[in-house]
Amino acid sequence: MKLLLSFFLLTTSLVAFSQEKPNAGAAEKGLIKVSVMYPYAEGKTFNMEYYETKHMPMVAGYLGSNLVKYTIEKGLASGIPNQPLPFMAIGTFYIKSLSEYQAAIGPNRDAIRADFQNYTNVSPVILVSEVVK
Amino acid sequence: MKLLLSFFLLTTSLVAFSQEKPNAGAAEKGLIKVSVMYPYAEGKTFNMEYYETKHMPMVAGYLGSNLVKYTIEKGLASGIPNQPLPFMAIGTFYIKSLSEYQAAIGPNRDAIRADFQNYTNVSPVILVSEVVK
Repeated sequence: MKLLLSFFLLTTSLVAFSQEKPNAGAAEKGLIKVSVMYPYAEGKTFNMEYYETKHMPMVAGYLGSNLVKYTIEKGLASGIPNQPLPFMAIGTFYIKSLSEYQAAIGPNRDAIRADFQNYTNVSPVILVSEVVK
Repeated sequence: MKLLLSFFLLTTSLVAFSQEKPNAGAAEKGLIKVSVMYPYAEGKTFNMEYYETKHMPMVAGYLGSNLVKYTIEKGLASGIPNQPLPFMAIGTFYIKSLSEYQAAIGPNRDAIRADFQNYTNVSPVILVSEVVK
């Protein structure tokens, strides 16, 4: 009985510890990122609340299980002294397949574009990249 | 004895399942990101191998425990048809404190800048941002 108990304790502890991911970045290596970047310029605006609560969930909903996760960041400043803020915000989709992403976005492109005006007056730059590390 | 065994099984299973992070992005919320973004233009080059094996580890080494993780991505294309690739590569530091980051980088700025020529001939754009989601 004691031996059986020890065995169970050992195996479930091993399962518990194996779930830890000390470098969470490693989990994204090899994924594709689609980064939607909203440049800052005088007179340009960005409504983060709408973006976070309405727009991004809407687009994420189109992507299904191809979407591993999405992130949102709010631009604070340039990292170079005396340079203006480069981007007001960036929304990033981590996906498994770029072609699946394009197939999912295609039919919904008009809806996505129509929603831009609800949170910004700038056109985004969009970068497709591969996670190296 | 059986009851004790069941109790142990239950608690360690709970520990195992609580380690799972279905939205790993949540672990970064509230962190500061410093994104070093290398713009693409005709004639501009980028040596990813040097960047990944030499430059980024060097800078990460200056940052100490303030650095939660760093990531590297390789630009593949614009997400907008007929637009050129926006960035060749982006290196991103996830940090807890911006002031600690600046204090760590300051004394090493010359070394960092001197290393640029070993992997690129373009000056980066640097964005400081806050992880919202």
